[in-house]
Amino acid sequence: MMPRLVDHQERRRSIIETTWQLIASHGIDNASMRDIARECGYAAPGVLAYYFPNKDALLLAAYELICERTNERIETGICGRRGLAALRGLCLEIIPANPLTVVEARVAVSFWQRAQTEEPLRAVGRDALLHWRALVMGFLAEAEYDGECATLADPDAVADELLNVMFGLHITSMLDPDAITGSRQRHLVERALSRLTAGEPAAHQTVPSTADSDGLRR
Amino acid sequence: MMPRLVDHQERRRSIIETTWQLIASHGIDNASMRDIARECGYAAPGVLAYYFPNKDALLLAAYELICERTNERIETGICGRRGLAALRGLCLEIIPANPLTVVEARVAVSFWQRAQTEEPLRAVGRDALLHWRALVMGFLAEAEYDGECATLADPDAVADELLNVMFGLHITSMLDPDAITGSRQRHLVERALSRLTAGEPAAHQTVPSTADSDGLRR
Repeated sequence: MMPRLVDHQERRRSIIETTWQLIASHGIDNASMRDIARECGYAAPGVLAYYFPNKDALLLAAYELICERTNERIETGICGRRGLAALRGLCLEIIPANPLTVVEARVAVSFWQRAQTEEPLRAVGRDALLHWRALVMGFLAEAEYDGECATLADPDAVADELLNVMFGLHITSMLDPDAITGSRQRHLVERALSRLTAGEPAAHQTVPSTADSDGLRR
Repeated sequence: MMPRLVDHQERRRSIIETTWQLIASHGIDNASMRDIARECGYAAPGVLAYYFPNKDALLLAAYELICERTNERIETGICGRRGLAALRGLCLEIIPANPLTVVEARVAVSFWQRAQTEEPLRAVGRDALLHWRALVMGFLAEAEYDGECATLADPDAVADELLNVMFGLHITSMLDPDAITGSRQRHLVERALSRLTAGEPAAHQTVPSTADSDGLRR
Protein backbone atom coordinates (compact mmCIF):
# COMPACT_ATOMS: atom_id res chain seq x y z
CA MET A 1 0.00 0.00 0.00
CA MET A 2 1.34 3.44 -0.91
CA PRO A 3 1.74 5.77 2.07
CA ARG A 4 -0.64 8.71 2.18
CA LEU A 5 0.65 11.93 0.59
CA VAL A 6 0.85 13.69 3.93
CA ASP A 7 3.02 10.88 5.33
CA HIS A 8 5.27 11.11 2.29
CA GLN A 9 5.77 14.86 2.81
CA GLU A 10 6.37 14.41 6.54
CA ARG A 11 8.87 11.66 5.87
CA ARG A 12 10.73 13.80 3.36
CA ARG A 13 10.92 16.65 5.85
CA SER A 14 12.17 14.36 8.57
CA ILE A 15 14.87 12.92 6.28
CA ILE A 16 15.93 16.43 5.32
CA GLU A 17 16.22 17.55 8.95
CA THR A 18 18.35 14.51 9.77
CA THR A 19 20.51 15.35 6.75
CA TRP A 20 21.03 18.92 7.99
CA GLN A 21 22.37 17.64 11.29
CA LEU A 22 24.69 15.11 9.62
CA ILE A 23 26.06 17.73 7.20
CA ALA A 24 26.62 20.20 10.03
CA SER A 25 28.43 17.68 12.23
CA HIS A 26 30.31 15.53 9.71
CA GLY A 27 30.30 17.40 6.41
CA ILE A 28 28.47 16.62 3.21
CA ASP A 29 31.28 14.41 1.89
CA ASN A 30 31.17 12.24 4.99
CA ALA A 31 27.37 11.90 5.04
CA SER A 32 26.59 9.06 2.65
CA MET A 33 23.06 8.04 1.69
CA ARG A 34 23.76 4.94 3.80
CA ASP A 35 24.60 7.08 6.87
CA ILE A 36 21.53 9.21 6.36
CA ALA A 37 19.31 6.13 6.02
CA ARG A 38 20.75 4.62 9.19
CA GLU A 39 20.32 7.86 11.12
CA CYS A 40 16.69 7.97 9.95
CA GLY A 41 16.15 4.46 11.28
CA TYR A 42 15.91 2.69 7.91
CA ALA A 43 17.60 -0.70 7.86
CA ALA A 44 18.33 -0.48 4.14
CA PRO A 45 19.55 2.68 2.34
CA GLY A 46 17.41 1.70 -0.65
CA VAL A 47 14.31 2.97 1.19
CA LEU A 48 15.70 6.49 0.87
CA ALA A 49 15.49 6.27 -2.93
CA TYR A 50 11.70 6.28 -2.62
CA TYR A 51 11.96 9.82 -1.28
CA PHE A 52 15.12 11.12 -3.02
CA PRO A 53 16.64 9.55 -6.15
CA ASN A 54 20.20 10.59 -5.23
CA LYS A 55 22.33 12.72 -2.97
CA ASP A 56 22.18 15.84 -5.15
CA ALA A 57 18.38 15.68 -5.11
CA LEU A 58 18.44 15.35 -1.32
CA LEU A 59 20.87 18.26 -0.94
CA LEU A 60 18.75 20.37 -3.27
CA ALA A 61 15.64 19.63 -1.22
CA ALA A 62 17.56 20.34 2.00
CA TYR A 63 18.72 23.72 0.72
CA GLU A 64 15.25 24.58 -0.62
CA LEU A 65 13.65 23.78 2.73
CA ILE A 66 16.27 25.91 4.51
CA CYS A 67 15.51 28.87 2.24
CA GLU A 68 11.78 28.33 2.74
CA ARG A 69 12.11 28.25 6.55
CA THR A 70 14.43 31.27 6.54
CA ASN A 71 11.85 33.16 4.48
CA GLU A 72 9.06 32.10 6.84
CA ARG A 73 11.11 33.32 9.80
CA ILE A 74 11.81 36.60 8.00
CA GLU A 75 8.07 37.09 7.42
CA THR A 76 7.22 36.20 11.02
CA GLY A 77 10.09 38.37 12.31
CA ILE A 78 8.98 41.32 10.24
CA CYS A 79 5.37 40.96 11.36
CA GLY A 80 4.06 44.34 10.25
CA ARG A 81 7.36 46.18 10.57
CA ARG A 82 8.95 47.84 7.56
CA GLY A 83 11.97 49.86 6.50
CA LEU A 84 15.13 49.51 8.56
CA ALA A 85 13.48 47.47 11.34
CA ALA A 86 12.36 44.92 8.75
CA LEU A 87 15.81 45.00 7.13
CA ARG A 88 17.43 44.27 10.49
CA GLY A 89 15.06 41.34 11.01
CA LEU A 90 15.99 39.92 7.61
CA CYS A 91 19.74 40.22 8.23
CA LEU A 92 19.50 38.54 11.64
CA GLU A 93 17.72 35.55 10.09
CA ILE A 94 20.38 35.10 7.41
CA ILE A 95 23.72 35.58 9.21
CA PRO A 96 25.06 32.48 11.02
CA ALA A 97 24.93 34.10 14.45
CA ASN A 98 22.88 31.56 16.42
CA PRO A 99 22.89 27.72 16.61
CA LEU A 100 20.05 27.32 14.12
CA THR A 101 21.47 29.65 11.46
CA VAL A 102 24.95 28.11 11.95
CA VAL A 103 23.55 24.71 10.92
CA GLU A 104 21.84 26.36 7.97
CA ALA A 105 25.09 28.06 6.98
CA ARG A 106 26.95 24.74 7.01
CA VAL A 107 24.42 23.28 4.60
CA ALA A 108 24.55 26.42 2.45
CA VAL A 109 28.36 26.25 2.10
CA SER A 110 28.16 22.56 1.11
CA PHE A 111 25.44 23.44 -1.34
CA TRP A 112 27.37 26.37 -2.88
CA GLN A 113 30.36 24.14 -3.50
CA ARG A 114 28.23 21.77 -5.55
CA ALA A 115 26.33 24.61 -7.21
CA GLN A 116 29.60 25.55 -8.91
CA THR A 117 29.18 22.65 -11.32
CA GLU A 118 25.55 21.52 -10.94
CA GLU A 119 23.32 23.92 -12.84
CA PRO A 120 19.99 22.97 -11.13
CA LEU A 121 21.59 23.61 -7.72
CA ARG A 122 23.00 26.95 -8.88
CA ALA A 123 19.57 28.06 -10.11
CA VAL A 124 18.06 27.46 -6.66
CA GLY A 125 20.89 29.36 -4.96
CA ARG A 126 20.46 32.22 -7.40
CA ASP A 127 16.70 32.37 -6.73
CA ALA A 128 17.33 32.64 -2.99
CA LEU A 129 19.87 35.42 -3.57
CA LEU A 130 17.47 37.32 -5.86
CA HIS A 131 14.57 36.91 -3.43
CA TRP A 132 16.61 38.35 -0.54
CA ARG A 133 17.92 41.10 -2.82
CA ALA A 134 14.34 42.10 -3.73
CA LEU A 135 13.39 42.15 -0.04
CA VAL A 136 16.39 44.34 0.82
CA MET A 137 15.58 46.75 -2.02
CA GLY A 138 11.95 46.97 -0.84
CA PHE A 139 12.95 47.69 2.77
CA LEU A 140 15.43 50.34 1.61
CA ALA A 141 12.70 52.01 -0.46
CA GLU A 142 10.42 52.00 2.61
CA ALA A 143 13.20 53.50 4.74
CA GLU A 144 13.65 56.30 2.20
CA TYR A 145 9.89 56.86 1.92
CA ASP A 146 9.44 56.96 5.70
CA GLY A 147 12.36 59.36 6.09
CA GLU A 148 14.46 56.92 8.11
CA CYS A 149 17.33 57.63 5.74
CA ALA A 150 18.09 60.23 3.08
CA THR A 151 17.54 59.33 -0.56
CA LEU A 152 20.19 56.76 -1.42
CA ALA A 153 22.50 57.61 -4.33
CA ASP A 154 22.99 53.94 -5.20
CA PRO A 155 20.51 51.63 -3.43
CA ASP A 156 21.51 48.66 -5.63
CA ALA A 157 25.06 48.92 -4.37
CA VAL A 158 23.86 49.27 -0.76
CA ALA A 159 21.85 46.06 -1.20
CA ASP A 160 24.68 44.17 -2.93
CA GLU A 161 27.17 45.22 -0.28
CA LEU A 162 24.92 44.10 2.55
CA LEU A 163 24.14 40.77 0.87
CA ASN A 164 27.81 40.10 0.17
CA VAL A 165 28.71 40.83 3.78
CA MET A 166 26.07 38.30 4.88
CA PHE A 167 27.30 35.65 2.43
CA GLY A 168 30.89 36.36 3.42
CA LEU A 169 30.03 35.84 7.09
CA HIS A 170 29.02 32.27 6.21
CA ILE A 171 32.67 31.65 5.32
CA THR A 172 34.63 33.84 7.75
CA SER A 173 32.64 32.76 10.84
CA MET A 174 33.53 29.17 9.96
CA LEU A 175 37.23 29.86 9.30
CA ASP A 176 37.70 32.09 12.36
CA PRO A 177 34.86 31.43 14.82
CA ASP A 178 36.77 32.96 17.76
CA ALA A 179 36.88 36.38 16.08
CA ILE A 180 33.74 36.33 13.94
CA THR A 181 31.34 35.48 16.74
CA GLY A 182 27.58 35.97 16.64
CA SER A 183 27.88 39.26 18.47
CA ARG A 184 30.61 40.45 16.08
CA GLN A 185 28.35 39.58 13.13
CA ARG A 186 25.45 41.52 14.64
CA HIS A 187 27.81 44.47 15.21
CA LEU A 188 28.70 44.51 11.51
CA VAL A 189 25.00 44.44 10.57
CA GLU A 190 24.16 47.27 13.00
CA ARG A 191 27.05 49.28 11.63
CA ALA A 192 25.79 48.97 8.06
CA LEU A 193 22.28 49.97 9.19
CA SER A 194 23.44 52.94 11.24
CA ARG A 195 25.51 54.13 8.27
CA LEU A 196 22.24 54.40 6.34
CA THR A 197 20.65 56.70 8.90
CA ALA A 198 23.89 58.67 9.41
CA GLY A 199 23.79 59.45 5.70
CA GLU A 200 25.55 57.17 3.26
CA PRO A 201 28.10 59.37 1.46
CA ALA A 202 27.38 59.69 -2.26
CA ALA A 203 29.20 57.02 -4.20
CA HIS A 204 31.23 59.48 -6.24
CA GLN A 205 34.84 58.75 -7.03
CA THR A 206 36.99 60.66 -4.57
CA VAL A 207 39.97 58.33 -4.52
CA PRO A 208 42.19 58.86 -7.58
CA SER A 209 41.94 55.57 -9.43
CA THR A 210 45.33 54.41 -10.60
CA ALA A 211 44.14 50.90 -11.34
CA ASP A 212 43.90 51.42 -15.08
CA SER A 213 47.31 52.95 -15.60
CA ASP A 214 49.67 51.22 -13.21
CA GLY A 215 50.04 47.85 -14.83
CA LEU A 216 47.54 46.02 -12.62
CA ARG A 217 46.11 43.23 -14.71
CA ARG A 218 42.44 43.72 -15.33
CA MET B 1 66.97 6.67 -9.11
CA MET B 2 65.14 9.32 -7.09
CA PRO B 3 64.29 12.50 -9.00
CA ARG B 4 66.21 15.59 -7.97
CA LEU B 5 64.50 17.80 -5.39
CA VAL B 6 63.94 20.60 -7.88
CA ASP B 7 62.16 18.18 -10.22
CA HIS B 8 59.99 17.02 -7.34
CA GLN B 9 58.94 20.60 -6.53
CA GLU B 10 58.30 21.40 -10.18
CA ARG B 11 56.28 18.24 -10.58
CA ARG B 12 54.18 19.08 -7.53
CA ARG B 13 53.49 22.56 -8.88
CA SER B 14 52.52 21.20 -12.26
CA ILE B 15 50.13 18.67 -10.68
CA ILE B 16 48.57 21.43 -8.58
CA GLU B 17 48.02 23.68 -11.60
CA THR B 18 46.36 20.84 -13.47
CA THR B 19 44.18 20.23 -10.41
CA TRP B 20 43.09 23.90 -10.35
CA GLN B 21 41.87 23.65 -13.91
CA LEU B 22 40.01 20.39 -13.28
CA ILE B 23 38.34 21.77 -10.15
CA ALA B 24 37.34 24.95 -11.97
CA SER B 25 35.87 23.11 -14.94
CA HIS B 26 34.40 19.96 -13.37
CA GLY B 27 34.22 20.56 -9.63
CA ILE B 28 36.24 18.99 -6.85
CA ASP B 29 33.82 16.09 -6.46
CA ASN B 30 34.16 15.17 -10.13
CA ALA B 31 37.96 15.44 -10.18
CA SER B 32 39.24 12.08 -8.92
CA MET B 33 42.91 11.31 -8.28
CA ARG B 34 42.63 9.09 -11.36
CA ASP B 35 41.38 12.01 -13.51
CA ILE B 36 44.12 14.27 -12.21
CA ALA B 37 46.78 11.64 -12.89
CA ARG B 38 45.51 11.11 -16.44
CA GLU B 39 45.38 14.85 -17.11
CA CYS B 40 48.98 15.11 -15.88
CA GLY B 41 50.01 12.40 -18.34
CA TYR B 42 50.61 9.63 -15.79
CA ALA B 43 49.45 6.22 -16.99
CA ALA B 44 48.80 5.01 -13.43
CA PRO B 45 47.16 7.12 -10.67
CA GLY B 46 49.52 5.49 -8.17
CA VAL B 47 52.32 7.75 -9.36
CA LEU B 48 50.43 10.70 -7.86
CA ALA B 49 50.78 9.21 -4.37
CA TYR B 50 54.50 9.90 -4.55
CA TYR B 51 53.67 13.62 -4.57
CA PHE B 52 50.40 13.74 -2.58
CA PRO B 53 49.20 10.96 -0.25
CA ASN B 54 45.50 11.72 -0.84
CA LYS B 55 43.02 14.18 -2.26
CA ASP B 56 42.77 16.32 0.89
CA ALA B 57 46.54 16.75 0.88
CA LEU B 58 46.44 17.75 -2.79
CA LEU B 59 43.59 20.21 -2.19
CA LEU B 60 45.44 21.68 0.79
CA ALA B 61 48.57 22.17 -1.32
CA ALA B 62 46.48 23.65 -4.14
CA TYR B 63 44.87 26.17 -1.80
CA GLU B 64 48.21 27.02 -0.15
CA LEU B 65 49.80 27.69 -3.53
CA ILE B 66 46.86 29.88 -4.53
CA CYS B 67 47.22 31.96 -1.36
CA GLU B 68 50.98 32.18 -1.93
CA ARG B 69 50.56 33.38 -5.53
CA THR B 70 47.83 35.83 -4.53
CA ASN B 71 50.14 37.25 -1.89
CA GLU B 72 53.00 37.51 -4.39
CA ARG B 73 50.70 39.36 -6.79
CA ILE B 74 49.58 41.68 -3.98
CA GLU B 75 53.22 42.50 -3.18
CA THR B 76 54.07 43.04 -6.83
CA GLY B 77 50.89 45.06 -7.38
CA ILE B 78 51.61 47.25 -4.38
CA CYS B 79 55.20 47.85 -5.47
CA GLY B 80 56.03 50.79 -3.20
CA ARG B 81 52.45 52.09 -2.95
CA ARG B 82 50.74 52.34 0.40
CA GLY B 83 47.47 53.40 2.02
CA LEU B 84 44.34 53.32 -0.11
CA ALA B 85 46.20 52.63 -3.37
CA ALA B 86 47.76 49.54 -1.80
CA LEU B 87 44.38 48.55 -0.33
CA ARG B 88 42.80 48.80 -3.78
CA GLY B 89 45.57 46.60 -5.23
CA LEU B 90 44.95 43.97 -2.55
CA CYS B 91 41.19 43.92 -3.14
CA LEU B 92 41.57 43.58 -6.90
CA GLU B 93 43.81 40.54 -6.46
CA ILE B 94 41.34 38.79 -4.14
CA ILE B 95 37.92 39.36 -5.75
CA PRO B 96 37.00 36.91 -8.56
CA ALA B 97 36.79 39.61 -11.22
CA ASN B 98 39.13 38.24 -13.91
CA PRO B 99 39.69 34.76 -15.41
CA LEU B 100 42.63 33.95 -13.15
CA THR B 101 40.96 34.98 -9.88
CA VAL B 102 37.73 33.21 -10.95
CA VAL B 103 39.65 29.91 -11.13
CA GLU B 104 41.20 30.67 -7.74
CA ALA B 105 37.75 31.41 -6.31
CA ARG B 106 36.41 28.06 -7.54
CA VAL B 107 39.20 26.26 -5.71
CA ALA B 108 38.66 28.42 -2.62
CA VAL B 109 34.94 27.57 -2.43
CA SER B 110 35.71 23.83 -2.78
CA PHE B 111 38.34 24.22 -0.11
CA TRP B 112 36.04 26.10 2.30
CA GLN B 113 33.42 23.39 2.03
CA ARG B 114 35.94 20.79 3.18
CA ALA B 115 37.44 23.13 5.78
CA GLN B 116 34.10 22.92 7.63
CA THR B 117 35.00 19.46 8.87
CA GLU B 118 38.76 19.09 8.21
CA GLU B 119 40.66 20.98 10.90
CA PRO B 120 44.04 21.19 9.06
CA LEU B 121 42.28 22.72 6.05
CA ARG B 122 40.42 25.20 8.24
CA ALA B 123 43.68 26.32 9.88
CA VAL B 124 45.16 27.18 6.48
CA GLY B 125 42.05 29.11 5.45
CA ARG B 126 42.11 30.98 8.74
CA ASP B 127 45.78 31.92 8.27
CA ALA B 128 45.02 33.37 4.83
CA LEU B 129 42.10 35.37 6.27
CA LEU B 130 44.25 36.68 9.15
CA HIS B 131 47.10 37.58 6.79
CA TRP B 132 44.79 39.62 4.54
CA ARG B 133 43.17 41.18 7.58
CA ALA B 134 46.57 42.31 8.88
CA LEU B 135 47.41 43.79 5.47
CA VAL B 136 44.08 45.66 5.34
CA MET B 137 44.62 47.04 8.86
CA GLY B 138 48.13 48.20 7.92
CA PHE B 139 46.93 49.96 4.78
CA LEU B 140 44.11 51.64 6.70
CA ALA B 141 46.63 52.90 9.29
CA GLU B 142 48.78 54.29 6.47
CA ALA B 143 45.75 55.98 4.91
CA GLU B 144 44.96 57.65 8.24
CA TYR B 145 48.61 58.64 8.81
CA ASP B 146 48.92 60.08 5.30
CA GLY B 147 45.68 62.03 5.70
CA GLU B 148 43.92 60.13 2.90
CA CYS B 149 41.04 59.54 5.29
CA ALA B 150 39.97 60.93 8.66
CA THR B 151 40.75 58.91 11.78
CA LEU B 152 38.52 55.84 11.63
CA ALA B 153 36.19 55.29 14.58
CA ASP B 154 36.29 51.51 14.13
CA PRO B 155 39.05 50.34 11.74
CA ASP B 156 38.56 46.68 12.75
CA ALA B 157 34.97 46.82 11.55
CA VAL B 158 36.01 48.57 8.32
CA ALA B 159 38.49 45.74 7.68
CA ASP B 160 36.02 42.98 8.57
CA GLU B 161 33.33 44.49 6.39
CA LEU B 162 35.65 44.76 3.39
CA LEU B 163 36.97 41.21 3.85
CA ASN B 164 33.44 39.82 4.18
CA VAL B 165 32.35 41.61 1.02
CA MET B 166 35.31 40.02 -0.81
CA PHE B 167 34.56 36.54 0.54
CA GLY B 168 30.87 37.01 -0.24
CA LEU B 169 31.71 37.93 -3.84
CA HIS B 170 33.27 34.47 -4.24
CA ILE B 171 29.76 33.05 -3.71
CA THR B 172 27.43 35.62 -5.28
CA SER B 173 29.48 35.99 -8.50
CA MET B 174 29.18 32.22 -8.93
CA LEU B 175 25.43 32.09 -8.17
CA ASP B 176 24.55 35.14 -10.28
CA PRO B 177 27.38 35.82 -12.75
CA ASP B 178 25.19 37.95 -15.03
CA ALA B 179 24.61 40.53 -12.27
CA ILE B 180 27.78 40.20 -10.18
CA THR B 181 30.21 40.75 -13.05
CA GLY B 182 33.86 41.72 -12.70
CA SER B 183 33.01 45.35 -13.28
CA ARG B 184 30.20 45.20 -10.69
CA GLN B 185 32.64 43.73 -8.17
CA ARG B 186 35.17 46.49 -8.83
CA HIS B 187 32.38 49.07 -8.42
CA LEU B 188 31.61 47.68 -4.96
CA VAL B 189 35.29 47.85 -3.99
CA GLU B 190 35.65 51.43 -5.28
CA ARG B 191 32.53 52.38 -3.39
CA ALA B 192 33.92 51.05 -0.10
CA LEU B 193 37.20 52.89 -0.73
CA SER B 194 35.55 56.18 -1.65
CA ARG B 195 33.42 55.94 1.47
CA LEU B 196 36.65 56.01 3.49
CA THR B 197 37.83 59.26 1.94
CA ALA B 198 34.32 60.78 2.03
CA GLY B 199 34.38 60.22 5.79
CA GLU B 200 33.02 57.02 7.23
CA PRO B 201 30.20 58.07 9.59
CA ALA B 202 30.90 57.22 13.20
CA ALA B 203 29.55 53.80 14.10
CA HIS B 204 27.22 55.11 16.77
CA GLN B 205 23.78 53.62 17.15
CA THR B 206 21.32 55.93 15.46
CA VAL B 207 18.72 53.36 14.51
CA PRO B 208 16.41 52.56 17.45
CA SER B 209 17.17 48.92 18.12
CA THR B 210 14.03 46.97 18.79
CA ALA B 211 15.77 43.67 18.25
CA ASP B 212 16.18 42.88 21.94
CA SER B 213 12.61 43.48 22.90
CA ASP B 214 10.58 42.12 20.05
CA GLY B 215 11.07 38.42 20.47
CA LEU B 216 13.68 37.99 17.73
CA ARG B 217 15.68 34.88 18.53
CA ARG B 218 19.38 35.56 19.19
